[in-house]
Amino acid sequence: MSNKLGSLRGLVTAAAPSRGSVLELPPRRALLYVPGDSEKKISKAADLGVDVVCLDLEDAVAQGRKDAARETAAKALAELSFGRSERAVRINAVQSGHCEDDLEAVLSGAALPDALVVPKIDSVEHVRWLFDRVKGLLGPRLQGEAPPALITMCESGMGLLNLRQIFEACLTRTNVLRLEACILGADDLQASLGLKRQQGTDDTLFARRWVVLHARAFGLQPIDQVYIDYKNSHGLQAEALEGRGIGMAGKQIIHPSQIAPVQDAFSPDPHEVEEARQLVQAFEEHQLQGKGAFTFRDRMIDQPTYLQARNLLQFAARVGQA
Amino acid sequence: MSNKLGSLRGLVTAAAPSRGSVLELPPRRALLYVPGDSEKKISKAADLGVDVVCLDLEDAVAQGRKDAARETAAKALAELSFGRSERAVRINAVQSGHCEDDLEAVLSGAALPDALVVPKIDSVEHVRWLFDRVKGLLGPRLQGEAPPALITMCESGMGLLNLRQIFEACLTRTNVLRLEACILGADDLQASLGLKRQQGTDDTLFARRWVVLHARAFGLQPIDQVYIDYKNSHGLQAEALEGRGIGMAGKQIIHPSQIAPVQDAFSPDPHEVEEARQLVQAFEEHQLQGKGAFTFRDRMIDQPTYLQARNLLQFAARVGQA
Amino acid sequence: MSNKLGSLRGLVTAAAPSRGSVLELPPRRALLYVPGDSEKKISKAADLGVDVVCLDLEDAVAQGRKDAARETAAKALAELSFGRSERAVRINAVQSGHCEDDLEAVLSGAALPDALVVPKIDSVEHVRWLFDRVKGLLGPRLQGEAPPALITMCESGMGLLNLRQIFEACLTRTNVLRLEACILGADDLQASLGLKRQQGTDDTLFARRWVVLHARAFGLQPIDQVYIDYKNSHGLQAEALEGRGIGMAGKQIIHPSQIAPVQDAFSPDPHEVEEARQLVQAFEEHQLQGKGAFTFRDRMIDQPTYLQARNLLQFAARVGQA
Repeated sequence: MSNKLGSLRGLVTAAAPSRGSVLELPPRRALLYVPGDSEKKISKAADLGVDVVCLDLEDAVAQGRKDAARETAAKALAELSFGRSERAVRINAVQSGHCEDDLEAVLSGAALPDALVVPKIDSVEHVRWLFDRVKGLLGPRLQGEAPPALITMCESGMGLLNLRQIFEACLTRTNVLRLEACILGADDLQASLGLKRQQGTDDTLFARRWVVLHARAFGLQPIDQVYIDYKNSHGLQAEALEGRGIGMAGKQIIHPSQIAPVQDAFSPDPHEVEEARQLVQAFEEHQLQGKGAFTFRDRMIDQPTYLQARNLLQFAARVGQA
Repeated sequence: MSNKLGSLRGLVTAAAPSRGSVLELPPRRALLYVPGDSEKKISKAADLGVDVVCLDLEDAVAQGRKDAARETAAKALAELSFGRSERAVRINAVQSGHCEDDLEAVLSGAALPDALVVPKIDSVEHVRWLFDRVKGLLGPRLQGEAPPALITMCESGMGLLNLRQIFEACLTRTNVLRLEACILGADDLQASLGLKRQQGTDDTLFARRWVVLHARAFGLQPIDQVYIDYKNSHGLQAEALEGRGIGMAGKQIIHPSQIAPVQDAFSPDPHEVEEARQLVQAFEEHQLQGKGAFTFRDRMIDQPTYLQARNLLQFAARVGQA
Repeated sequence: MSNKLGSLRGLVTAAAPSRGSVLELPPRRALLYVPGDSEKKISKAADLGVDVVCLDLEDAVAQGRKDAARETAAKALAELSFGRSERAVRINAVQSGHCEDDLEAVLSGAALPDALVVPKIDSVEHVRWLFDRVKGLLGPRLQGEAPPALITMCESGMGLLNLRQIFEACLTRTNVLRLEACILGADDLQASLGLKRQQGTDDTLFARRWVVLHARAFGLQPIDQVYIDYKNSHGLQAEALEGRGIGMAGKQIIHPSQIAPVQDAFSPDPHEVEEARQLVQAFEEHQLQGKGAFTFRDRMIDQPTYLQARNLLQFAARVGQA
């Protein structure tokens, strides 16, 4: 028997990451952008208990304020306590002309960010350039410290088409940056794909499912688009639940009022947790009795359903829902 | 002219399989799983007139009953008459630790199954391992007998991403196993993609269309997900019709009561058959008169529409509807 | 700084075509097919002000009329004025047996067509054959004249799967034919994918989005399926708007009555143009004041949104809406 397992070991390695491996990543239900040049907004954001605070050096900062933002963000990383929140920085895109200065400011400070968010990754060439620069900047620090997590942003048609190669290129160099998540950047993507936002059309749904498929296949967290109309809490909640339904692990947000509804949407409901607990218990009892599939509340239950329920319980425990 | 055709011949071969080639495959409108360790359920299933009876060694059989199921299934293949039904066996996954014993039991018996259903094929490595083992077991038998059909199951994000390479790897070795169909395994896939079943969300629709696209591109039959709530005949019918609408050729089922609604859903309606017959006749008359596109019941009819209608008539004849 | 830009230049080239590059292509909001063998219908079509008149040698022409159509189409190209309309010719497929004669007739005349529409491109082999033949026929003419635009048609599952390779193969030889657009051929595609047209099912939506994604990623115009029921103007308008919503740049049509509704659907609404103008103005003012993202009509506005608005204004100007 051990002989057989021996011949199978290579297969298991070559195949997909084991299901549920995504659960070992930190929760990223909500990722809140804060302008990197606003000390006041950063301080406030650090206290909100959001899963990820993302200091933005890109779209939220005007061209003339980039240097101020770099300095303010680096200082915040070094001096501010973010409580249980993950500290991320969104730099400008590789192809923007600002990226190299951003990396220098963010990776030379006393404290590295927990995660680096890199927008507009369209090709393997972007990945190579980024990893080479980061390696050059972090240098010997990579021996002593864990490398920052990497969160790539997919924001164009070509970025979508190249997603697999992009992930594969990142995942061969996890000693420099640990790819863990992929954000769908909807506004640029809409422009790139010629989509038109209109009532009742699921304009970005295809692209969002495409990102989910690719990210989940590699055990990464797919993070959903921003809901721009931040005063419409009903619309936000609906879109967050939709995102969760299609397999997103979290959502970008732009306003503190979006934290609670979004983190709620990406947390399990109590009745789901309870049902999962009962299902797991029933399955394990049947398994002990040598029975396989069985009926539970009029549904046929088998191993995949059992694993799904167990995963739900683990996640609930992590976000304090169980 | 023959010169021109000569230079074109390679192109035709290199291109997609001719449309409609899928019609030469046996109908697989419904594929009924039966626990491989239940002689009684297998006997009953053999008499139901379902397109495919699938003796299950995987999820429907508890860990402690695998040997009993192998023996019972092999015996049923050798001794039982399945009437017009195709006899399939679902083995455990390549990466499960049970697969090698399953293959030995199923492929060493007096009667080979008509088709082998192999779950959780995630990579080309899985395909290679499977084909090597089957070739080793069937050996000289492959000279005299037609190899069993192969029905792969796609059940993870990586399985979806690798679908093209998986099909290509299988189709280069049709002398060992003849790849003919691909099943979407929804429960594992939902877990892999992080999908959440909820009211009104088409949670698996993207993955199902993805499987249809890839399977149909290679002339294979895509077979749809199980409808788990077997007491809800209305829901079953709706999902079966939806599956047919998106291009599925059939559906997995788990209860005898699901046979009729599912086989009906994947059969042509009488009025469709009649309309197709009239359209084919009208088109052929116009063609003889040297006219191309023409109007039939307010729709512009051209060659593609004509071919679609002819395919429908052929399929109707095969399942006894015309 | 110039040093940095130097090292980045390769990246920009290697990445996706710049967003909005599609706008430099001629508008192809509606592409009207006319039977290539009907001088009368061609003459009429030339006066309608449609973006593209496409003389059809393929499905609209019966087998016995192919020679007549070739002659009539070539004569129309040479002698007829098409006003502001682009003059396209749809030849028969590479694998049809008619293609070589079509190419000779169309590319040897006094006047080349503005664009060549080539149906059923399923593989890179089709592309290679086509470009070799066109190069052989146009020969030294390619030195003096701009090559015709190429519009490929995607009409099968394999054509969809190979779309990226097909585009890449075309785009390496833009000196022979300039690939600019890709048409989704729905009827053949439905047959190839086993789709069934039925009430309320978005049967081709997945394939249409797939084509949009691939075409837009390469800066090409995706052109939508024919709406066959040409007496139903309400249905036509709805489908045209849907196409525009998912990123299509235009739509094939089969009747003069379809021109106005389709070209309207693919033109910007006046109120959109006005909103875009105000947004662009406000953004540029904030940019001058050193501010980045800001709030405009309760939405957070950043650079991507600004670029989208500017693109809209440019397109409106081209089709005379601004």
